[in-house]
Amino acid sequence: MTKDRGLLIVFSGPSGVGKGTVRAKIFEGKNDFSYSVSMTTRAQRPGEVDGKDYFFRTREQFEEKIRAGLMLEYAEYVGNYYGTPLEYVNETLDAGKDVFLEIEVQGALQVKEKVPDAVFVFLAPPDLRELRDRLTRRGTDSAEAIEGRLVKAREEISLMKDYDYVVVNDEVEKAAELVKKIIAAEHTRVERVVEKYREIFEKEEVTLL
Amino acid sequence: MTKDRGLLIVFSGPSGVGKGTVRAKIFEGKNDFSYSVSMTTRAQRPGEVDGKDYFFRTREQFEEKIRAGLMLEYAEYVGNYYGTPLEYVNETLDAGKDVFLEIEVQGALQVKEKVPDAVFVFLAPPDLRELRDRLTRRGTDSAEAIEGRLVKAREEISLMKDYDYVVVNDEVEKAAELVKKIIAAEHTRVERVVEKYREIFEKEEVTLL
Repeated sequence: MTKDRGLLIVFSGPSGVGKGTVRAKIFEGKNDFSYSVSMTTRAQRPGEVDGKDYFFRTREQFEEKIRAGLMLEYAEYVGNYYGTPLEYVNETLDAGKDVFLEIEVQGALQVKEKVPDAVFVFLAPPDLRELRDRLTRRGTDSAEAIEGRLVKAREEISLMKDYDYVVVNDEVEKAAELVKKIIAAEHTRVERVVEKYREIFEKEEVTLL
Repeated sequence: MTKDRGLLIVFSGPSGVGKGTVRAKIFEGKNDFSYSVSMTTRAQRPGEVDGKDYFFRTREQFEEKIRAGLMLEYAEYVGNYYGTPLEYVNETLDAGKDVFLEIEVQGALQVKEKVPDAVFVFLAPPDLRELRDRLTRRGTDSAEAIEGRLVKAREEISLMKDYDYVVVNDEVEKAAELVKKIIAAEHTRVERVVEKYREIFEKEEVTLL
């Protein structure tokens, strides 16, 4: 019997929001999911391990992967490629294990197109909440300062809307716990559970006839 | 400033599945939601407290509530009415607190029509999972026995599909934890969060112009 396919969890958010710290906290404790190691063309730094921190590849090797359609998502920053190899993700999901991707927003949008039923979690900066409190107490900020914040927040909200969940990173521990709860809850979503039972019935009907 | 409205959580499932036991476990620990006390026309039993176990009312009083549209849901069992008064639910939600309803499946369907954005959690009997394991090891059950189970499971699945989450009650503690995680996760759903910030921006634009 094939096992149920794992969930693909895409964890993203604006740069500087603290994705890496929250991800490290999530993986500190007991968990049932696998972290997908990214591939990069940037130089390996002292202490970094190939296959653990990154898969270190040449530019030619990376572009060959892209051409062959073997990258789930990728982007170029300051002359180097960064991305997620499809193979590990698919094999792990097929084995019934959840895969956790911590990626930039532009990469997340690529995954959204390819794997719409992945679970998209947006890590939001805590000042969105502060902003909210601030705006309720009017007049403490200049109109320009409020406007500046609004513009930034607006940009972030326009990114949020394609995600399923928004976790505010006001406390690393709390944010990590929330992400784990989201993953647990997603496993009980009716779409996933009903489909599982339906398959069994369809198989069984054939047997009974 | 008005607070965010609370979530309405509808906890239901087939009779005999153990809803009351799981609900009691959920309310044992620390939690941020209120339990909605049901109203009934059945006689008050020794030890039961009006307003705690149930709101005990006469048949006339209950029917008056129904006519006035003041019941969120209700049903009649063995000559007695049971239902959820709308007033407490609305007041609690307006105060920004989540409300937890533990009700029968027919009541849950009524709530679904009136409050589609409530969170619907279906508690499923553990033998659905056992059934699944059993069906994978073929031939251990007679065809009739398998068919009987399939009919029952099919009925239950037809009820499940209008819910958002399915929690299997194989262990009370585990089921209660899962329900709590679902509630925490639902508070981070993008629809709820984005709407919150959008309202703030719309208000603020008026101020800035």
